[in-house]
Amino acid sequence: MPPKAARRTFGVERLIALSDGVFAIVCTLLVLDIKLPEPPHPGHTLARELWENVPDTVGWAISFVVLARLWVVHHRIVDNLARCRSVTIVLNFAFLAFVSLIPFAASLIGAYEFHNRTAVTVFSVIFGSAAISLGFLARHVQNEPLLAKPNRDDLSWHARHHTTVLPLVAAVAIVAGLLVPQFALFIWLGEGLFIILTSLRDHRPLGEEITDATLAAPDGYPSDAPTRSG
Amino acid sequence: MPPKAARRTFGVERLIALSDGVFAIVCTLLVLDIKLPEPPHPGHTLARELWENVPDTVGWAISFVVLARLWVVHHRIVDNLARCRSVTIVLNFAFLAFVSLIPFAASLIGAYEFHNRTAVTVFSVIFGSAAISLGFLARHVQNEPLLAKPNRDDLSWHARHHTTVLPLVAAVAIVAGLLVPQFALFIWLGEGLFIILTSLRDHRPLGEEITDATLAAPDGYPSDAPTRSG
Amino acid sequence: MPPKAARRTFGVERLIALSDGVFAIVCTLLVLDIKLPEPPHPGHTLARELWENVPDTVGWAISFVVLARLWVVHHRIVDNLARCRSVTIVLNFAFLAFVSLIPFAASLIGAYEFHNRTAVTVFSVIFGSAAISLGFLARHVQNEPLLAKPNRDDLSWHARHHTTVLPLVAAVAIVAGLLVPQFALFIWLGEGLFIILTSLRDHRPLGEEITDATLAAPDGYPSDAPTRSG
Amino acid sequence: MPPKAARRTFGVERLIALSDGVFAIVCTLLVLDIKLPEPPHPGHTLARELWENVPDTVGWAISFVVLARLWVVHHRIVDNLARCRSVTIVLNFAFLAFVSLIPFAASLIGAYEFHNRTAVTVFSVIFGSAAISLGFLARHVQNEPLLAKPNRDDLSWHARHHTTVLPLVAAVAIVAGLLVPQFALFIWLGEGLFIILTSLRDHRPLGEEITDATLAAPDGYPSDAPTRSG
Repeated sequence: MPPKAARRTFGVERLIALSDGVFAIVCTLLVLDIKLPEPPHPGHTLARELWENVPDTVGWAISFVVLARLWVVHHRIVDNLARCRSVTIVLNFAFLAFVSLIPFAASLIGAYEFHNRTAVTVFSVIFGSAAISLGFLARHVQNEPLLAKPNRDDLSWHARHHTTVLPLVAAVAIVAGLLVPQFALFIWLGEGLFIILTSLRDHRPLGEEITDATLAAPDGYPSDAPTRSG
Repeated sequence: MPPKAARRTFGVERLIALSDGVFAIVCTLLVLDIKLPEPPHPGHTLARELWENVPDTVGWAISFVVLARLWVVHHRIVDNLARCRSVTIVLNFAFLAFVSLIPFAASLIGAYEFHNRTAVTVFSVIFGSAAISLGFLARHVQNEPLLAKPNRDDLSWHARHHTTVLPLVAAVAIVAGLLVPQFALFIWLGEGLFIILTSLRDHRPLGEEITDATLAAPDGYPSDAPTRSG
Repeated sequence: MPPKAARRTFGVERLIALSDGVFAIVCTLLVLDIKLPEPPHPGHTLARELWENVPDTVGWAISFVVLARLWVVHHRIVDNLARCRSVTIVLNFAFLAFVSLIPFAASLIGAYEFHNRTAVTVFSVIFGSAAISLGFLARHVQNEPLLAKPNRDDLSWHARHHTTVLPLVAAVAIVAGLLVPQFALFIWLGEGLFIILTSLRDHRPLGEEITDATLAAPDGYPSDAPTRSG
Repeated sequence: MPPKAARRTFGVERLIALSDGVFAIVCTLLVLDIKLPEPPHPGHTLARELWENVPDTVGWAISFVVLARLWVVHHRIVDNLARCRSVTIVLNFAFLAFVSLIPFAASLIGAYEFHNRTAVTVFSVIFGSAAISLGFLARHVQNEPLLAKPNRDDLSWHARHHTTVLPLVAAVAIVAGLLVPQFALFIWLGEGLFIILTSLRDHRPLGEEITDATLAAPDGYPSDAPTRSG
């Protein structure tokens, strides 16, 4: 067996680079689903092809919003880490596995359209699993204070929301999707927009709170400006 | 609701990494559109296949130039940021959404060729939207001086050009494209080359302005050499 | 001939960035193999299509696990390097070549299913080659102490496991795969899970060993916490 | 016109990140060309499909070697830069445009095989252009000493090789390819291996030249160990 590397820690740079790479590729691959057939169907105008492509385009837009929402929360969680451990890497890979399935989920919506119950259920299962695995990552970061930077955020809301609220949301989305498939997509779009918009609540021009010291924080990872100056 | 992280700021490293990832993938995916059919059409020589592929190749070249132009301006804008906020991330995602649509725009030109009015209009709408969303990012950076590095650039030209001049250019390109489709592509190519070439105006070998202090700037983000030494 | 750059060393940043990029793309491209045909087969329900897709999905899951296992070991090896040399870059490219073949290996399993002896043999050859080339990288890092960071890990277990044990495992997998093809896949899945799970053995919340000095290590690459404080 | 940013310089981080992203994607996309048809041709065994795929596989291997060779030289050139300018970015984009065409070149070889003169000529033109544009980048770095790090390498061999020798090699490869198409591929493979192997000439375990000071160089970009200690 490999030698036991007692309580070994790693930098988070590569974990972040891998994650950002996966997100960047998923963002871009999503668009492949809205490509039109080449050569075009004989006798179809481009306008008609684009019209028939509307389900793919809506599936792309919903997936992009939910992907942005996952990235924003992943950013906020990992931003608290100064170091990571093997378990962090494994939890992150579980999350990335579900993120990398998102183009698959979106292609089901594009190919089978909004009224297909199976497609919408698979979509809900994949997005729900991505969100839940992100919650386990949040809980892990919350439980390992010695990996964190000083003045770290309280992640308990995110840990709780992703591991207890979102499984319920996923269950509701799946049941609702069996009755009215489109409804499941609205639930995921709504939850995604909710997370993105609440992250913007602090959108006012910054006041004097950011000091020069914060901007020039030597480790490149200054924590919250108000906390530091407080 | 998630706890209010009052006026929280983040590093810009991940925002930049995600953006560069999307640009790198888009640059590379663009080439997929100029691939030849495999297996080749029976009876066609490769030379003939390549000749029939010329619209795809021109669409690739125009898209690559405009993509490089967007990257250069994005680089110049973000280079001023020492920190970012949630709203910066959301504006950047809006920009990346349009950037990720560029292979779709290019594939329309390849499949429907230059004389298709709908294809050229979609192309103009996507490039125009990418440019305008970049303008909103520039305006945001300009309006939040406390996020910026010391000695930041004046971005007001870029903010104005992208949010007021380019919507007009896009409108002209769309109207012109309805009359002569090829003309819209020339407008976008011309604007892209204009931005790239004006960025080169300062192309003379550097003089003595760069001091050792600039090269070894401790935060890794020295601002303009002349400003520093002045 | 190019000038001899005697014993030149390079930073490892770009080697890492290239490797993480390749891993991120391979993770994401693997999913393309489990996409369903578009348009769907006439008369097939989505549930039936998904059922027929199970071999692709299992191939994806096995490949993802083995890919994560390769990344974890690559991370652990390269984490010891402070600098690298041309030979490091070439060994890393050999490894990346085999990693980039993994979507090809997975697509064979998807298209030809588990009971095809040739598909399973190709799969074993590609994964075995990736693992062996990683072993040569570990051996190189082990043999060049002057490239390493202070307090580096002992990589001899990894070097030995990948260059002597894994060729045997690959031979067993290939022979076993000729008799019972599915068995070869279980061997690779088992070895991958073994490496991942043993990397987790130290999963307890960290104690007081991580000092502030470790977290704020100026070079961004602190070595093991216990070693430092010891 | 945009305000004149007199002699503005930028960090090289994003230029490097974009380049590594493009290389990582090109490495990985190359493999898409060697994928087998799915579903398999009726009546063909997998062994026969793999056999018919040999031209694609050889095209992949040659392309991968030449790509690694381009990356190694790009790394060596850019490693000398402490800062860059707009012209550096534009020269780098020209290089990346040709690099992103490499999967297209490789797919021609795969689809039209080694004995197709047009395919081999296009392959030579694309690889030759990539190499020449890299030479212009080397020449630019060589001519702007104030952008360079202290103790920079002498790049004049690379600048000369890529801008004067390689155009000749490309011309020879094109002419030779018109007579014996396979010959052109051997020329590119040979040149690539030559560059990679000569970069390894200094492959002996390092002696005492690397001091602790080098390993802990504060800017993360220590130059050659021998130069520093000299």
